[in-house]
Amino acid sequence: MYKYLNKVNSPKDIKAMSVEEMDLLAKDIRKFLVKSVSNTGGHLASNLGVVELTLALHKVFDSPEDKIVWDVGHQSYVHKIVTGRKNDFTSLRQFNGLSGFPKENESPHDIFDTGHSSTSISVATGIACARDIKNEDYSVISVIGDGSITGGMALEALNHLGYVKKNMIVILNDNEMSIDKNVGGMSRHLSSIISNSTVNKVKDEVEKLLSITSTGNAISKTANKVKDSIIGKFIPQECALFDSLGIKYYGPIDGHNTKELIDILIKAKNKKGPVLLHVITKKGKGYKFAEEKPDKYHGVSKFDIRTGVLPSSNKSISCAVGEKLIDMAKKNENIVAITAAMPSGTGLNLFEKVYPNRYYDVGIAEQHAATFSAGLAKNGLKPYFAVYSSFLQRAYDQVIHDICITNKPVTLLIDRAGIVGNDGETHHGMFDLSYLNSVPNITVMAPKDTRELELMMDLSLDINAPVAIRYPRGNSYYLNKGSYENINIGQYEVLEEGKDTVILAIGNMVKHALEASEILLNEDIKPTIVNARFLKPIDETLLHKLVKEYKNIVTIEDNIITGGFGSRINQFIIDNGYDVKVTNIGLPETFIPHGSPNEIYDSIGLSPNCIADKIKSL
Amino acid sequence: MYKYLNKVNSPKDIKAMSVEEMDLLAKDIRKFLVKSVSNTGGHLASNLGVVELTLALHKVFDSPEDKIVWDVGHQSYVHKIVTGRKNDFTSLRQFNGLSGFPKENESPHDIFDTGHSSTSISVATGIACARDIKNEDYSVISVIGDGSITGGMALEALNHLGYVKKNMIVILNDNEMSIDKNVGGMSRHLSSIISNSTVNKVKDEVEKLLSITSTGNAISKTANKVKDSIIGKFIPQECALFDSLGIKYYGPIDGHNTKELIDILIKAKNKKGPVLLHVITKKGKGYKFAEEKPDKYHGVSKFDIRTGVLPSSNKSISCAVGEKLIDMAKKNENIVAITAAMPSGTGLNLFEKVYPNRYYDVGIAEQHAATFSAGLAKNGLKPYFAVYSSFLQRAYDQVIHDICITNKPVTLLIDRAGIVGNDGETHHGMFDLSYLNSVPNITVMAPKDTRELELMMDLSLDINAPVAIRYPRGNSYYLNKGSYENINIGQYEVLEEGKDTVILAIGNMVKHALEASEILLNEDIKPTIVNARFLKPIDETLLHKLVKEYKNIVTIEDNIITGGFGSRINQFIIDNGYDVKVTNIGLPETFIPHGSPNEIYDSIGLSPNCIADKIKSL
Repeated sequence: MYKYLNKVNSPKDIKAMSVEEMDLLAKDIRKFLVKSVSNTGGHLASNLGVVELTLALHKVFDSPEDKIVWDVGHQSYVHKIVTGRKNDFTSLRQFNGLSGFPKENESPHDIFDTGHSSTSISVATGIACARDIKNEDYSVISVIGDGSITGGMALEALNHLGYVKKNMIVILNDNEMSIDKNVGGMSRHLSSIISNSTVNKVKDEVEKLLSITSTGNAISKTANKVKDSIIGKFIPQECALFDSLGIKYYGPIDGHNTKELIDILIKAKNKKGPVLLHVITKKGKGYKFAEEKPDKYHGVSKFDIRTGVLPSSNKSISCAVGEKLIDMAKKNENIVAITAAMPSGTGLNLFEKVYPNRYYDVGIAEQHAATFSAGLAKNGLKPYFAVYSSFLQRAYDQVIHDICITNKPVTLLIDRAGIVGNDGETHHGMFDLSYLNSVPNITVMAPKDTRELELMMDLSLDINAPVAIRYPRGNSYYLNKGSYENINIGQYEVLEEGKDTVILAIGNMVKHALEASEILLNEDIKPTIVNARFLKPIDETLLHKLVKEYKNIVTIEDNIITGGFGSRINQFIIDNGYDVKVTNIGLPETFIPHGSPNEIYDSIGLSPNCIADKIKSL
Repeated sequence: MYKYLNKVNSPKDIKAMSVEEMDLLAKDIRKFLVKSVSNTGGHLASNLGVVELTLALHKVFDSPEDKIVWDVGHQSYVHKIVTGRKNDFTSLRQFNGLSGFPKENESPHDIFDTGHSSTSISVATGIACARDIKNEDYSVISVIGDGSITGGMALEALNHLGYVKKNMIVILNDNEMSIDKNVGGMSRHLSSIISNSTVNKVKDEVEKLLSITSTGNAISKTANKVKDSIIGKFIPQECALFDSLGIKYYGPIDGHNTKELIDILIKAKNKKGPVLLHVITKKGKGYKFAEEKPDKYHGVSKFDIRTGVLPSSNKSISCAVGEKLIDMAKKNENIVAITAAMPSGTGLNLFEKVYPNRYYDVGIAEQHAATFSAGLAKNGLKPYFAVYSSFLQRAYDQVIHDICITNKPVTLLIDRAGIVGNDGETHHGMFDLSYLNSVPNITVMAPKDTRELELMMDLSLDINAPVAIRYPRGNSYYLNKGSYENINIGQYEVLEEGKDTVILAIGNMVKHALEASEILLNEDIKPTIVNARFLKPIDETLLHKLVKEYKNIVTIEDNIITGGFGSRINQFIIDNGYDVKVTNIGLPETFIPHGSPNEIYDSIGLSPNCIADKIKSL
């Protein structure tokens, strides 16, 4: 079925291939990718875009002696396929299976673990500096998207690289998209370079000429000569942006022309000092549904190859957040929404449609997003910054310094809190309760279900200070348990009355606690279950009562236990000198790999069954 | 004494002044600044550099209706002087006195609290976007240094500002320095613009001509005309760096020429879209000692005006760290040192002198510094990244994602941990024990004194994984108490044997605990004192023994209690089901203002006296 792919078990096998064979291999790989990802789910469009680029890299460079660092890394599938891992793709992103990102412990060809954006130039510059200190000799290459390169740390790295002038290649993979359409001054500038490229214009003319003349005649021969004379020539266009930082720019380069890519990579390999190759690719290339809607095919679940139909999913929590924010904005004209390049992931794409003038996509720039929100708030607006938990880590100083010290009424809508599943280590939102816990002035809450999330958003309107609301990845769900009336700050609610043991569960874990309680009914054990809506402030009145009443206090959170919700409850108990048995359930102090959330919950003792067992053992 | 300054009680008084009077006022202000800071200490050189710029801003714009946002803010003294606070300068940076940074609660002219670098463009862009939503009409100005503008978030903000095209002015205050000499590709580019400026070349020629002709003759008249025709003209030089991001560049502009500044600010005020004014200033301008050594006069203690002599200080802990690292590097050729624009602050300036090729100053770029270090480590080096605690907050995601997930042997030398004193809220290192506590794979330690700090640095060599060592601002000190032999990972030491109460103190607080113990001797109370060298791993063996033996466990840390050292000890006690009275002493969950460390310790209950009182009350 895969005539050329079958021949490739390591990068060496590509080196023996002609350009024509590589193009046929590219076809095989695209077929393999679509088939494989349609079965397992995963990142599709970005990988379809870098097939020729990846093959050309492995043709010209000797991995792993030459170091290829993939930014973010969701576009490393082709690299994984040709470095001996194609047979593992049936287990892609599954528990104990192949990771969807580069992993050093998976292959020596994976130079550095990635997952978050904009890190690769820093890593590669470090590797290049170390190489020179150790008098070693090889190439170091960072492959970074045009979305990722606008992230602050990538710009910091370019500024440093342009200064130390190390031999290093930055490949700017420009498909004019992050997950959604790119924004920003730099993006606009890069687009204008592409559209003004003389080389590209001549090429287009030649292609037109070739298309209307018959092969072999004089005109076609001349045209082909012109084409050959252009392709592969190192014709630098102006890109003052990089040149002024001290990094030599070459481009734009057709990222689907294998010969051109190989020629240019060979030349770049021999250049002194840092160079940036501006390579133009098409996200989703070769699979028409993905070419048409690259955002929809960025990350997918299983789908039907023939029709391109993605499984219809129930409404996500992110969606519900977007809709609720629209409702709120109707009544309150001060509400504005901010995202850092995640409009569809956070549900703010819905908000944008209704209120385009009250919506800001700042690009991959969480730091700026947080402080920009504080600036909006300074001027009397009520900003909602929707951001994934693990990406908010990037704006930690800004949350402290610009939102909380200044006590601005910015609300952080923290999506993807807790276990996210298949994206693994880098994407679990497992630290936010800990890293926000110690920050003064901020109210931190987590809802039991989607209806309560909406109520918390209502409550945030009344809080003239920083607020964070954290909620998990996944579909909206409704427990229909307890009250759904307006919430007061710091007010917990008792959902089930039992005896001996009281479970204080926060957010998503209220559901697990209720399910654990169902299981325990068979054992004739009935704990009291409290929906602890607030990490802080805590419900001191209720806690005093509960601690005096019950023998066992159990806390449950889908955050690392250290410094999180349980830790705050421990502090309350210790500060008040209570003598009561406390059990903290939550994520262990370790990084947690990829897999389905349920498999992960089981493996770390956070599934309803595990929780029930733990309660039983008390 | 201050003829012109005496007339200025608000920005209105400047508006009435002629350019000549403003220049005389500038002289008064420089005299006032030198005198005042020589009495109180504070930031001197940066403020001497922006006198004309600040006056011109207040002449042209109407503060606080027009919003001036000062980046970092240590250069806001002149602004404070002319906005009604000159009489408060005797209390500058003192407990309950005038802050050394902009503070919203100090004056409506202070638009936003700052302290950390690179935030002002984000804040100003937020304010400008909100202004337009609310259909308001005023100018928004960000004043940012050429060091700060290379910080990632400033570049993120420029990328966004160039895209949304708001009317906004960015003033790039270029003195070619942060605290130390600037580095980076952008800095090199800006310098080349200055040296290649046609305007400046013509101006220099004219000035030369004027200096050799007598006033009033024909040549001098013509030359003066030429001069006038140049000065104040909006002659844009090329600066493709900003232009390509969508921000119109104008410069270079002489930052000490009041007329030129006023003319250009008026024109910038009426421009549509974002503009960047590249203003050249001299750090330390007008006080020769500061002009000669602007780094030494960046932040000073009291000094002698006439001789410029700064008080000789004892060796700082940072210095000891720099020297120790040199010693280690002699024996281990893999050791490299990294700083983010803080060579003298962190003591790495010493290292640079001895090992310039194993030293990297990456500019104000903590994110890049952390991940760059991880890249160096990937290639077999042993990187030491020295960074202030509160600035490491900027690299939190990189510590998690690039150092700890990948488990790289990078050592963070965390300077300025705990209470730093006069810089206040934004500079206290009060969160690091909390935000590192929950991060897997990292060993976190804090030494009792400077000798033990060196031992911990030795120990870090043997740890092939991430390490953090935190230590306070201030002079080296030696307790001569307990052991100074090699330390084992996770090993605490008992310093004094007492009864009933055991104090577990970490880092700097060991000293306070010993002093408290001295005080308690008079009361016939003698607690046991333990030097808890590790936040993690903890010394479980010793802790089990102590918890069983003593009635009271007291923890002391100069970090916020929430999620910090005490919290980890609480977790140990709760996990093991011990019934013992625990008291956590540390920083309260609130931001802590400026003042001397001792005044602050007293005010928050962390001085030896307060600690003794607390122990007595048990």
